[in-house]
Amino acid sequence: MTISFHTLTVRTFTRMLTNLLRILEKAEANAAERKIGPEVLAGSRLAPDMHPLTFQIQSATDRAKFALARITGKAAPSWADDEKTLEQLRARIQKGLDFLATFSAAEVDGAEDKMITVKVAGQDTEINAQDYLLNSVFPNFYFHSTTASDILRHNGVPVGKRDFTGS
Amino acid sequence: MTISFHTLTVRTFTRMLTNLLRILEKAEANAAERKIGPEVLAGSRLAPDMHPLTFQIQSATDRAKFALARITGKAAPSWADDEKTLEQLRARIQKGLDFLATFSAAEVDGAEDKMITVKVAGQDTEINAQDYLLNSVFPNFYFHSTTASDILRHNGVPVGKRDFTGS
Repeated sequence: MTISFHTLTVRTFTRMLTNLLRILEKAEANAAERKIGPEVLAGSRLAPDMHPLTFQIQSATDRAKFALARITGKAAPSWADDEKTLEQLRARIQKGLDFLATFSAAEVDGAEDKMITVKVAGQDTEINAQDYLLNSVFPNFYFHSTTASDILRHNGVPVGKRDFTGS
Repeated sequence: MTISFHTLTVRTFTRMLTNLLRILEKAEANAAERKIGPEVLAGSRLAPDMHPLTFQIQSATDRAKFALARITGKAAPSWADDEKTLEQLRARIQKGLDFLATFSAAEVDGAEDKMITVKVAGQDTEINAQDYLLNSVFPNFYFHSTTASDILRHNGVPVGKRDFTGS
């Protein structure tokens, strides 16, 4: 059996975004319990010069969205990046999951050699889809997803690594 | 062209651990500049009930090590988990990189269907190597690598996402 590019992309992102959705649900319940306003955790950061939770979730969903759009040539829907609450961030993740669900294995499998144009240091650079996924999309997607989880944990939300990995 | 399991594993881990090595070098230089003792950042955490930087680096290197050992059937070297300083953590990452460098494409490619036994909730469970990599190794490896970077950034070390992704 060869490795399926659909499995590598759609299944990975779907699994991880679903876990992130559960983490946000726990954060919302915990914020309600601690009487923390709906925008506080969404605006929290690990350092003053790091982006807040809103940005981490927007970026994770964007990385998955643009990866599939670029790999298949399908248009990426535009999302406004105006989420301010945990509830709105859950809706953002759901939009990501809904978009991922529109890709069939037949559309994605075999696209690993497709040449994709990305900006590297401001220059258009051609890279094949497999290298794009492994060198750019995965590190960025996992960075933002993990940092989202780390921000919540740092702020006392009872989520652990198992919520993140889903196992 | 099919997707290479060697690329997916050895190249991913080598790339990310090399980036982490550069991040630790920056942390060491920054700690020296700020006159922070050699064990302080290594023992730092994002939350009192989260593991410190030492554990994050030990876990990231262990995940890569055990993945390749299990996939190929090669014995995994035993590492003592006794690192206490950033310098020792760099040496730990170098051990990981050296171990990864011993695997040829011929040893790893095609192993994606091999059945691997892992513990799930205390029970021995059989899973194929590809699912093991995507569902368990990658989420765990990236979680610990990102959290290592997040701990340093949270503590004022001037490292950013580009140090992590290497692009």
